Amino acid sequence: MQHIIPHNILSQTITKRPAVSHKGTYGRVALIGGNQQFGGAIILASEAAVNTGAGLVTTVTAPENHASLHARLPEAMVVDWTDLPAVKEIVRQASVIVIGPGLGLDSQSLALLKLVFASVTRQQVCVVDGSAITLMAEHDVTVPNHSAAFILTPHKKEWERLSGIPVTEQNEERNLLAKEKIPAAVVLKKHRTEIFFETDTYLNPIGTPAMATGGMGDTLAGIIAGFTAQFQPKDKALLAAVYLHSLLGEQLGKSHYVALPSKLIGLISRTMKQFET
Amino acid sequence: MQHIIPHNILSQTITKRPAVSHKGTYGRVALIGGNQQFGGAIILASEAAVNTGAGLVTTVTAPENHASLHARLPEAMVVDWTDLPAVKEIVRQASVIVIGPGLGLDSQSLALLKLVFASVTRQQVCVVDGSAITLMAEHDVTVPNHSAAFILTPHKKEWERLSGIPVTEQNEERNLLAKEKIPAAVVLKKHRTEIFFETDTYLNPIGTPAMATGGMGDTLAGIIAGFTAQFQPKDKALLAAVYLHSLLGEQLGKSHYVALPSKLIGLISRTMKQFET
Amino acid sequence: MQHIIPHNILSQTITKRPAVSHKGTYGRVALIGGNQQFGGAIILASEAAVNTGAGLVTTVTAPENHASLHARLPEAMVVDWTDLPAVKEIVRQASVIVIGPGLGLDSQSLALLKLVFASVTRQQVCVVDGSAITLMAEHDVTVPNHSAAFILTPHKKEWERLSGIPVTEQNEERNLLAKEKIPAAVVLKKHRTEIFFETDTYLNPIGTPAMATGGMGDTLAGIIAGFTAQFQPKDKALLAAVYLHSLLGEQLGKSHYVALPSKLIGLISRTMKQFET
Amino acid sequence: MQHIIPHNILSQTITKRPAVSHKGTYGRVALIGGNQQFGGAIILASEAAVNTGAGLVTTVTAPENHASLHARLPEAMVVDWTDLPAVKEIVRQASVIVIGPGLGLDSQSLALLKLVFASVTRQQVCVVDGSAITLMAEHDVTVPNHSAAFILTPHKKEWERLSGIPVTEQNEERNLLAKEKIPAAVVLKKHRTEIFFETDTYLNPIGTPAMATGGMGDTLAGIIAGFTAQFQPKDKALLAAVYLHSLLGEQLGKSHYVALPSKLIGLISRTMKQFET
Repeated sequence: MQHIIPHNILSQTITKRPAVSHKGTYGRVALIGGNQQFGGAIILASEAAVNTGAGLVTTVTAPENHASLHARLPEAMVVDWTDLPAVKEIVRQASVIVIGPGLGLDSQSLALLKLVFASVTRQQVCVVDGSAITLMAEHDVTVPNHSAAFILTPHKKEWERLSGIPVTEQNEERNLLAKEKIPAAVVLKKHRTEIFFETDTYLNPIGTPAMATGGMGDTLAGIIAGFTAQFQPKDKALLAAVYLHSLLGEQLGKSHYVALPSKLIGLISRTMKQFET
Repeated sequence: MQHIIPHNILSQTITKRPAVSHKGTYGRVALIGGNQQFGGAIILASEAAVNTGAGLVTTVTAPENHASLHARLPEAMVVDWTDLPAVKEIVRQASVIVIGPGLGLDSQSLALLKLVFASVTRQQVCVVDGSAITLMAEHDVTVPNHSAAFILTPHKKEWERLSGIPVTEQNEERNLLAKEKIPAAVVLKKHRTEIFFETDTYLNPIGTPAMATGGMGDTLAGIIAGFTAQFQPKDKALLAAVYLHSLLGEQLGKSHYVALPSKLIGLISRTMKQFET
Repeated sequence: MQHIIPHNILSQTITKRPAVSHKGTYGRVALIGGNQQFGGAIILASEAAVNTGAGLVTTVTAPENHASLHARLPEAMVVDWTDLPAVKEIVRQASVIVIGPGLGLDSQSLALLKLVFASVTRQQVCVVDGSAITLMAEHDVTVPNHSAAFILTPHKKEWERLSGIPVTEQNEERNLLAKEKIPAAVVLKKHRTEIFFETDTYLNPIGTPAMATGGMGDTLAGIIAGFTAQFQPKDKALLAAVYLHSLLGEQLGKSHYVALPSKLIGLISRTMKQFET
Repeated sequence: MQHIIPHNILSQTITKRPAVSHKGTYGRVALIGGNQQFGGAIILASEAAVNTGAGLVTTVTAPENHASLHARLPEAMVVDWTDLPAVKEIVRQASVIVIGPGLGLDSQSLALLKLVFASVTRQQVCVVDGSAITLMAEHDVTVPNHSAAFILTPHKKEWERLSGIPVTEQNEERNLLAKEKIPAAVVLKKHRTEIFFETDTYLNPIGTPAMATGGMGDTLAGIIAGFTAQFQPKDKALLAAVYLHSLLGEQLGKSHYVALPSKLIGLISRTMKQFET
């Protein structure tokens, strides 16, 4: 059944923090991505996660990106993605894993994707974004059934690769059919983003073309991570994340020709505060 | 015929974004430059392009500049400029290429210039700036006829090198004569910048000496790239870019003794928004 | 005896600077920590110390963190932590030493901890934080008696490791008993942080769960360093530091869902000014 | 004769920029310093110079500092200080050279100092700061007579090293006597900074202890460079630079407990604008 994300989704989802709590209460997020060329993607995703209030954030990325990550975001920890035992341990400890922003398509990227898919457990959320989706399509890697709460966040071209449905032929019916074979929530990013759950489908009623710029999808992945790490139930947290992302884009787009991801991220925490209940 | 850029050039050029669009709609910009000494130049050009709203921006530069680029601008992708096959691929995919800011004058720089000139096609815009112009003069590299929409952005000293006309002898008549031999639009940067097209010449009526500072030309190159990637026709987009650059300099110069490029860049997106129609 | 930190602790502690003074008047702080994975921790601690007004700040950290430290904080000096003779000299000159934020648990970390514990003198303050506390517990390193004014800043889990009291069994009585064996002030970080001195105990009456996020403890360590470097008596300076940290968190938490350390640090100097007497 | 810097020194010195001008009009500044430990010093000096409006700024520093410099200041160019032929060329082209901020005291530092002292000509201004002054004292390097307009900027301890007068015995009479032997203007930094010219002495009537923090002297060196590169006569430009530095410190000190150099630098251009005539 097709629904529209309700405009009060944020106040429904964002809870006041309990007085007695500590950083562990707000989840551990591991973000894996950022090769030599696409380091900015994982930096933006990490910044977004930290700014939602995720308790502990670790970025797993190519060593080339460590200095720039820390220069922007000292709140994050960082792990060299070629150090697989360390990556495994970080994945094990995480409540939410994001894999994909700027991950790239080479063998190192594929090895990391497989490591994550082989390691995640039912207690964890796993967000699969960007190149990770392309890798799945290219190498026939499938979402491991029932192993974790998976969330896939393809844009239309990535969805074409994964589902086999050409961009021009994508419609609700065919998307749903393809989606049924994937044991994951699917966030199909476009003008009006759609979110496919097992039986229900949600349409995001807001957004602006000012958001059509590089890094915007990576930012969404980070917000989803932060929300699913902190809020219950997970499905609602996902919808709220998608909605907040577009709301901030609209806000920024009122005064700016382009809504840059790094600016949008700076609005997350203030705006969340306005909706906490 | 000599014209003056009309004061309504921005509202004539900057269009509201169509609701249904994606980052590809707003162009792919590749910026090539930034050796070990002049890394700041390509960083500023890239920041300018991102802030105009160019859809996807890739910076091709010396590895020494990757960390600082990402620390300032996670929205950009980055490619090591010694990896020529990768550079070739980035150039092929781009709708607009900028070559020159901080490029330097050595053999590596020359090889990149030649690669770009040999690769560009009619569908592309190619902005040639800074050291790339000096390289052309020093090595007798000429603009490949009819291969792309070329835009050259020399300051007076660079124009002397390219045209052979000494700075003190540059005037409209001699500039036009020299320009006729170059199949490109020429932006001659000075107190009142002139833009030479095939038959028409435009004078930029605004600007301020507060803009006379290092990095300002690189910033203009980035704005030109972002505008020609997004707006039609290309000639108008070029005029609008030149005008916006000076308008922002004037704006900043009202309250600051010097209009620093990094500050000017921060005003691009807000100001563009005010003129979109 | 159990006290509550009085709400006027800041005006009691923060003194107007004497007109005739120089940077040496305001102390020399050395901060030691930040391995490859946890570089952000020592960066945040250093930023906090600089922003309180500490006269001269040197950060001793892994070389991987030097560029990001300077990109954020050019006011700090930096020393490679593998250069032990240089570290020894920095420790010798310091009025306050912080060891622990992002220090890690390997042999290099342990060697640095032992070097500090062997070097400090009665004239110095030594703040022991984060991994340094875990190292003490794991390797039976004890606070050197009477050698310096030691301040330990464990969170509950670290306190469990050091005191042997499980988190769930920690209460005032048992904490005091364990504390008696340690010749140091102990700041037990939690919902309502407690500070144990030799005979008196203080409860921090303020704070907010918006502060429950990675890097917050590192930030406190830096504020403590800056306050004990500048203000007398040391015990009061410590209480004031704890109070200011929570006050800023509350301030930020009024408008933000999460109080990020880097934002909190930006409020230190302005807020201190309001309380100077 | 002892004077007090007049409160209208800024409006006397800061001139409106001529409409027809280019970046070369506003001078070329080369700043040399920043070893592995003290990189922040040369970064701050460079930021200060750029923010005053110096036309072209090149920072000559250890390679370890290049990334952080560019991450903060893309407006500057950068040269590896171990590349002596390149350094020589930069020094030759400069209108103002600053040597000293974070330079260090080793043989590489000394070689650079000697290179500068051997290269400068009468047309240039040479600001000698920080470790460069200590190096002069330790290695009996004297200011080359009549070769350039030299400005030395010692704090009291550095002045002790250079003049042989212990800090506690420094007074106007003895300072003047020592100064007579040095063919340079001397800026003796303290509570009320004094500037010694050949015959006249000036007292800086303003300043605040909020400025007593690491990096403040480096910032002054950068402002002096920017002012002497742009304004005439040089002596007045020097006085105006000292005055502006303290004025900004006072301004910042009204709302902040400590006036951090990086914050102070952010005020330079706006404040200069208010005084241009």
